[in-house]
Amino acid sequence: MKTYAIIMAGGVGSRFWPRSREKMPKQLLKIFGENTMIQDTVKRISKIINDEDIFIVTNKIQKDEIKKQLPQIPSENIIVEPFGRNTAACIGLASIIIHNFHPDAVTVVLPADHIIRDVDAFVDIIRKAIDFAYKTKGLVTIGIQPTRPETGYGYIQREEKEVEENIFKVKTFAEKPNYQTAEKFIESGDFLWNSGMFIWRADVILDEIKKHMPDLYEGLEKLQKHLMKDDFQKQVELVYGMLRSISIDYGVMEKSDNVYVIRSTFGWSDVGSWEEVYQLSHKDDNGNSLHGNCFVDGVKNSYIYSENNFTAVLGLENVIVINTDDALLVANRTHSQDVRKVVDYLKMKKHNEYL
Amino acid sequence: MKTYAIIMAGGVGSRFWPRSREKMPKQLLKIFGENTMIQDTVKRISKIINDEDIFIVTNKIQKDEIKKQLPQIPSENIIVEPFGRNTAACIGLASIIIHNFHPDAVTVVLPADHIIRDVDAFVDIIRKAIDFAYKTKGLVTIGIQPTRPETGYGYIQREEKEVEENIFKVKTFAEKPNYQTAEKFIESGDFLWNSGMFIWRADVILDEIKKHMPDLYEGLEKLQKHLMKDDFQKQVELVYGMLRSISIDYGVMEKSDNVYVIRSTFGWSDVGSWEEVYQLSHKDDNGNSLHGNCFVDGVKNSYIYSENNFTAVLGLENVIVINTDDALLVANRTHSQDVRKVVDYLKMKKHNEYL
Repeated sequence: MKTYAIIMAGGVGSRFWPRSREKMPKQLLKIFGENTMIQDTVKRISKIINDEDIFIVTNKIQKDEIKKQLPQIPSENIIVEPFGRNTAACIGLASIIIHNFHPDAVTVVLPADHIIRDVDAFVDIIRKAIDFAYKTKGLVTIGIQPTRPETGYGYIQREEKEVEENIFKVKTFAEKPNYQTAEKFIESGDFLWNSGMFIWRADVILDEIKKHMPDLYEGLEKLQKHLMKDDFQKQVELVYGMLRSISIDYGVMEKSDNVYVIRSTFGWSDVGSWEEVYQLSHKDDNGNSLHGNCFVDGVKNSYIYSENNFTAVLGLENVIVINTDDALLVANRTHSQDVRKVVDYLKMKKHNEYL
Repeated sequence: MKTYAIIMAGGVGSRFWPRSREKMPKQLLKIFGENTMIQDTVKRISKIINDEDIFIVTNKIQKDEIKKQLPQIPSENIIVEPFGRNTAACIGLASIIIHNFHPDAVTVVLPADHIIRDVDAFVDIIRKAIDFAYKTKGLVTIGIQPTRPETGYGYIQREEKEVEENIFKVKTFAEKPNYQTAEKFIESGDFLWNSGMFIWRADVILDEIKKHMPDLYEGLEKLQKHLMKDDFQKQVELVYGMLRSISIDYGVMEKSDNVYVIRSTFGWSDVGSWEEVYQLSHKDDNGNSLHGNCFVDGVKNSYIYSENNFTAVLGLENVIVINTDDALLVANRTHSQDVRKVVDYLKMKKHNEYL
């Protein structure tokens, strides 16, 4: 059995402004520790899958930085989308390449910008998912056992009955809920967080795309004829121009009756905001997480990042301060999601130098 | 009657870090409007005194910037102290130069970094003080009618009886009080804020220094022999090395029985903190005073200054954000005085680039 990985690394990550920029989104940043998030993602999956079998789908802007950060990945494995068309197109594009090598290869699809605390548990789950997906020809998703009524994640409702240990058929997918709904999900006991990680055979996912997204499949069929040819990238641009921007969840997973979920507990987060970075960071006795050249006095429960400049914070609690060379964010922790408003403002004002 | 001005511009202004630096202290900054504070100070007094009769006492570090900001002041009028020795030495040094030109000239001594709202009222008061000081040979101070029990200023207690309209003999000087004492001062009705502005004849202040600070007078006498000579600056260095660091208030004013105060109401502030800058600034409907390239959302009653970088502030009230090219201050408005702690920290850590 042959295995491949597809790492989806096209995100722009505006929620981490001003550290994340169009050229340097979240997955390319060192948010925690020594490695960038994509370096950690590759490191984790390379415990199971050889570097030469790891594909990374990204865009023109990020391509060079990704090559720099991941010299162990063959440069022909960096797939460049001409523009983002959501996860269905991204996965379809990478899958025809993998299918061309090994039609029945199992493919592990991973976002580039999540964190996972218990890597050993993650590896065990992925191994189990690979075996299950190969054997059953099912579409397998990773569902995370929820620890709180989070409103920032999508949910997966599982069937009652276990197919195998911790593996269930999926009843339904649910969008990000409001708080009350999230509480009900948690109480019911059969909802899991949708991690956005998928495991399936290349031939299976292409069949499912053919069934549920025939327009995408038509585009992919065209591209299959140009695989390994000089004009492939040019054809990708032509085909992408005609594709709809649809997620694999919406386009395939919610429509297929061949979907399974593995219940997992490996300390996962998609790190969706500075608040979540604060929550996941090591804190000192005052509840502060301090990074870079800074001085605090009378400060509690705050996250402070000072890139090269010196930062002083006095007499404040529950604040996020992100001080980069050219742009600064100062936010109440409860307003961490409003970073989008800043990015929208910068777009509106065409202040592209800060985007 | 000949008049001169002495503008004391040697302060380091650490309370305005990170905008104020050793090379660029408060008086050299545009805190309000188009002009720097020393430019405003010179502009005000030049309504009464000719530019060529205005002397500025400063130090080596600030000299060039002062010449740049005040091209109308003859460069020989910029007096350079080798190091700061408080106001008594500063005033003594400038006074022997003025005394050499016109022994009975009236000298207006002004700090370089105060703001005055009603310039016409200020001019009237200074004219009145000049006439009074010339005529009576008294030491005249400007006392500001208090508007609140301020603990950041020194106070002057006046005698009951008016000598002339709004002019009183001084009963006593009081250091910065605590809040309760400040309240009593206000209730009593005979206390005024000590503005640190003085008006007297050159011969009179030198006589008073001779009487109350004989050691300083001895040094000044030595220097008088070197006035207008090539070695003057070298002699100043020698003499300054032996001087005590004493304020004119403590060294002369509190000891002399020849001291008057003019009660004034021209909208004065010594602008002692970022909080006071906020108080004195124009505010928008949310009570914010915003300067430079910034975006706010859910922000109230705050002062935000963004030098060249872009600054975004979200969901905070009563904060001060001062974002300069290399250093950042984020402070609760109530902790505005703690800026000194930052400066102390930087000194301790020898981070001289931020001082």
